[in-house]
Amino acid sequence: MDHAAAPRKIILDCDPGHDDAVAMILAHGNPKIDLLAVTTVAGNQTLEKVTANALAVGTIAGIVDVPFAAGCPRPLVRAAETAGDVHGDSGMDGPAQPDPRIELDERHAVDLIIETIMAHEPGEVTLVPTGALTNIALAVRKEPRIVDRVREVVLMGGGYHTGNWSAVAEFNIKIDPEAAHIVFNEPWPVVMVGLDLTHQALATRDVVERIEKIGTGPARFVRELMDFFAQAYRDTQGFDAPPVHDPCAVAYVIDPQIVRTIKAPVSVELRGELTLGMTVTDFRAPAGDECHTSVAVDLDHAGFWDLVVDALQRIGEVPLGK
Amino acid sequence: MDHAAAPRKIILDCDPGHDDAVAMILAHGNPKIDLLAVTTVAGNQTLEKVTANALAVGTIAGIVDVPFAAGCPRPLVRAAETAGDVHGDSGMDGPAQPDPRIELDERHAVDLIIETIMAHEPGEVTLVPTGALTNIALAVRKEPRIVDRVREVVLMGGGYHTGNWSAVAEFNIKIDPEAAHIVFNEPWPVVMVGLDLTHQALATRDVVERIEKIGTGPARFVRELMDFFAQAYRDTQGFDAPPVHDPCAVAYVIDPQIVRTIKAPVSVELRGELTLGMTVTDFRAPAGDECHTSVAVDLDHAGFWDLVVDALQRIGEVPLGK
Amino acid sequence: MDHAAAPRKIILDCDPGHDDAVAMILAHGNPKIDLLAVTTVAGNQTLEKVTANALAVGTIAGIVDVPFAAGCPRPLVRAAETAGDVHGDSGMDGPAQPDPRIELDERHAVDLIIETIMAHEPGEVTLVPTGALTNIALAVRKEPRIVDRVREVVLMGGGYHTGNWSAVAEFNIKIDPEAAHIVFNEPWPVVMVGLDLTHQALATRDVVERIEKIGTGPARFVRELMDFFAQAYRDTQGFDAPPVHDPCAVAYVIDPQIVRTIKAPVSVELRGELTLGMTVTDFRAPAGDECHTSVAVDLDHAGFWDLVVDALQRIGEVPLGK
Amino acid sequence: MDHAAAPRKIILDCDPGHDDAVAMILAHGNPKIDLLAVTTVAGNQTLEKVTANALAVGTIAGIVDVPFAAGCPRPLVRAAETAGDVHGDSGMDGPAQPDPRIELDERHAVDLIIETIMAHEPGEVTLVPTGALTNIALAVRKEPRIVDRVREVVLMGGGYHTGNWSAVAEFNIKIDPEAAHIVFNEPWPVVMVGLDLTHQALATRDVVERIEKIGTGPARFVRELMDFFAQAYRDTQGFDAPPVHDPCAVAYVIDPQIVRTIKAPVSVELRGELTLGMTVTDFRAPAGDECHTSVAVDLDHAGFWDLVVDALQRIGEVPLGK
Repeated sequence: MDHAAAPRKIILDCDPGHDDAVAMILAHGNPKIDLLAVTTVAGNQTLEKVTANALAVGTIAGIVDVPFAAGCPRPLVRAAETAGDVHGDSGMDGPAQPDPRIELDERHAVDLIIETIMAHEPGEVTLVPTGALTNIALAVRKEPRIVDRVREVVLMGGGYHTGNWSAVAEFNIKIDPEAAHIVFNEPWPVVMVGLDLTHQALATRDVVERIEKIGTGPARFVRELMDFFAQAYRDTQGFDAPPVHDPCAVAYVIDPQIVRTIKAPVSVELRGELTLGMTVTDFRAPAGDECHTSVAVDLDHAGFWDLVVDALQRIGEVPLGK
Repeated sequence: MDHAAAPRKIILDCDPGHDDAVAMILAHGNPKIDLLAVTTVAGNQTLEKVTANALAVGTIAGIVDVPFAAGCPRPLVRAAETAGDVHGDSGMDGPAQPDPRIELDERHAVDLIIETIMAHEPGEVTLVPTGALTNIALAVRKEPRIVDRVREVVLMGGGYHTGNWSAVAEFNIKIDPEAAHIVFNEPWPVVMVGLDLTHQALATRDVVERIEKIGTGPARFVRELMDFFAQAYRDTQGFDAPPVHDPCAVAYVIDPQIVRTIKAPVSVELRGELTLGMTVTDFRAPAGDECHTSVAVDLDHAGFWDLVVDALQRIGEVPLGK
Repeated sequence: MDHAAAPRKIILDCDPGHDDAVAMILAHGNPKIDLLAVTTVAGNQTLEKVTANALAVGTIAGIVDVPFAAGCPRPLVRAAETAGDVHGDSGMDGPAQPDPRIELDERHAVDLIIETIMAHEPGEVTLVPTGALTNIALAVRKEPRIVDRVREVVLMGGGYHTGNWSAVAEFNIKIDPEAAHIVFNEPWPVVMVGLDLTHQALATRDVVERIEKIGTGPARFVRELMDFFAQAYRDTQGFDAPPVHDPCAVAYVIDPQIVRTIKAPVSVELRGELTLGMTVTDFRAPAGDECHTSVAVDLDHAGFWDLVVDALQRIGEVPLGK
Repeated sequence: MDHAAAPRKIILDCDPGHDDAVAMILAHGNPKIDLLAVTTVAGNQTLEKVTANALAVGTIAGIVDVPFAAGCPRPLVRAAETAGDVHGDSGMDGPAQPDPRIELDERHAVDLIIETIMAHEPGEVTLVPTGALTNIALAVRKEPRIVDRVREVVLMGGGYHTGNWSAVAEFNIKIDPEAAHIVFNEPWPVVMVGLDLTHQALATRDVVERIEKIGTGPARFVRELMDFFAQAYRDTQGFDAPPVHDPCAVAYVIDPQIVRTIKAPVSVELRGELTLGMTVTDFRAPAGDECHTSVAVDLDHAGFWDLVVDALQRIGEVPLGK
């Protein structure tokens, strides 16, 4: 199979979340992506809320032929934490949400992930987690054979020099560091699209204006997400424009030219008092062939937002009535 | 339902293992136990080996109408460790093993555990793990509702003043401390039948002679298990007679008079350098009503072995031919 | 030199503290002890308070020819903690305290300890720490040669199966675990007189009556200390009679028949979340010759209190006026 | 007192060490520095070796009226480590070393540090540690009043985004993280001149040529140090030119224009498995006034080497004969 030509089959495992919503839309609207499933995990908000949000985004963007399944309601070992200060009480505050027109698959996300991977040929399915890695870790532990079948794991999370949930750790990794440890330690290719990269993916004023001009319902929805997100990042972390993390992972799958990566060993700190959940990256020497992890370093800002705008244009208007 | 009168429904989650085999036989042969399922987990040996051993024990003891399912091949977070020095290369060295006449259920142990619990009324099913707690932890994380439905978790593992895999930690807990942490932290009743208790369950010479006199195939099998186990414990830990850990947990379910417990808070140490996997038990003050954990302190040695002998006698001879 | 016959030269490093006071009195009053110095360290209360208390006890008991020096005001690495709930605001609440008639040596306790040890022959001086081990640790790090010269370190602290400042850790060790780690790791003989032993040294009613009958000022002082201590232990830890920890270490130096010990490796846990400061003791196998640590296991209760009563009788009445 | 005009009084606490030697020479030769004492600590090599090296450098550079004192032979808590692969067996391999013409002060470095600080007015003395922080930590714990008297601590060690003794930790901090924790936690001003800065202080070919042209004995000595250091850094870490760490701290004291710093909270990780000894720096928000730590970020490479060349020129030729 010519992977370069055929659309990339991905499972998006997320916790919408403003930027998760944009990731869903980008994955759905870009022709180089074949979205096999959307699974949810507790993180930005409770499982119940992020699952409702996923269904709402699916409804708004017309993601109708893709199974949606709910996964783990809490991290593997540690107590649950959410990010209400960034994403609001609903986990996706800002725009009004429609009644969902999509039904949840009755399978557990972990089983949907396993079954989807095992039903495809080795090297076909790419995992794109943009939340805590609880579902992926559980799937690996329940069915270790998925490791050899997955093409790569392109995750939004972590950072090599940047933290947001502590001085040196990022939210998705820190809230479930044991799950992250599991995912980073399996020998599959892992691309860490971390804060060093995503803090370059700012939804600047001109970006928001471009989105607004599209004029469709889905574009309006994204624009309203960005408005809320901008305010939250201004208030909580002093950003001028909000970093839109999660679609960067999808953008990397679409076009690695847009998200430049370099190979480096990455391990997750599980014991540190100040460094718990840090994605410790070793840049002391060039990574050898045995290194199966890469980290994203440079974003083509214009190219990235072109992809998002293009996806919204392709999606066009989506009827929401019954 | 009168729990006292009806047989206790249990799921035995084990890693046979010499003493796991005795636990299986006691659970199968005692009329107060209704064995719903046998599930396996890596520990004393690899998952493949302990699963083969479980099927062999089932064959020898005639455990024919009970589903057997294989579970997790490795601990949740840490690298795998086995106890080959105590249980031999097969995990159940000593007696010859018959060709298994039992087929493995095709479900994953985690799903069999979840489905069995959810198919019964709340308060009906008791979990009896005698290996690492990986399967139970995964089941809880995948289906949190089992916590409210399980009657109690009676586990062999840990110890409050005794260790064997370090100065203060026991093998089952230390090889998967995160799984143990999960199990001890859920609000279900947990009875820790630890080394303080099981080091009282010595297969002394007179015990072995009683078993030998039974004269059946299953009794001969147990006797040969005990011979190997005695030698292993003499060589590796200086015991005069081997402690037969796992059936103590089953004995507690059969008759709490035989295994005296007291309530005390128990937590699993996950960070310690010398104490990793220690089941830290707080005896400083009498435990309050909110305390959901108990620890086994005193064994009725004679009563315990009476149960084992009785089970073997009830099982009688089991035809092994096809 | 015949160590058995000559009085044992000791440096008492303490944080009075009710039981420290009794240890001082026992060391001063017993003819088999040659008290070379009393040094103080923050612990039961601030350095200022415990130093004032030490001078007060010296005044009451007439310890006039012994240098008293103040040491470290806080633990090596961790933030300071005191035990005000057990020892009161002064650190020695209960009896009235006289104006001190003893002047503090101007040397730092660490230097006094080093100079005293180096001024004696190897094997002559025994260290008896009954508080946090900060001073001893600093002395070892500043002058490593003391390790070879000290006869043994007989310390009150820790416990192998008993905790009081957590489920498994004791106050003196837990408030400065790094210092304890240093002391336990140096190759000198260390005798740990821990809570397992000292919880046998209860100041029962008959003991207090014997002390009262002595009728001297120092005896009255001890009796009043015991009254306060009894109340504190009743209120905070539910004891019927208070355990008088620190003099047990002195009693061991006087007569090892009174405090039975066994050799076992002891290490201090520095990382544990639940076990920080635990004195991890390995009883799995008999200790070899290379083992330089022992733990106290059994107290001769009558013999112990006979020593205390005898010391008070020998001290007799001490004039406090100028 | 006009601190800006008067020479800055410093105590240099070091473990020569090739770059420590250059730091000594810079401190001695620059007129804006008044070198009060040189103290040594185990690190790059054993205490014995680094102390001999310090005396040799003092002899070569003619540092004759300054007390030299030896300090701690090992870290506070952890086992000793040295950096023989970088500094060679002597700790200062490369040039021939003369017979020392300087005698060691008989005081312990910790006492010399304390006495020197206490003998000056508050705000007069600056500490410049360029090795492990063991001596400084012990001094603070023995005499806490030095904290208020020291003007600032300008240390070479750590790094906010760069490690050399692990992916994220630097040698001086990692070999004695508890000492570093003590130094960073006291409320005195601390300037961390870490690897992020010192990896800019490369002894490039043109720098070495400038030093060579000076033509004196001390310059030849520095040149030979650089030759060895260049080879060691090429072989062990792939550097084109060696980073000359320690004099950067002295350069900051001489002229903060040459070493630009920014305020940020810094804490030392004591528990991490992958991050032990990391100097965790929090850049998430601008540091407030209460922040007492700064980190060095940019070096004026030319200005820095001008200082070193100037110091060598001022020192000129030093007679080594007796």
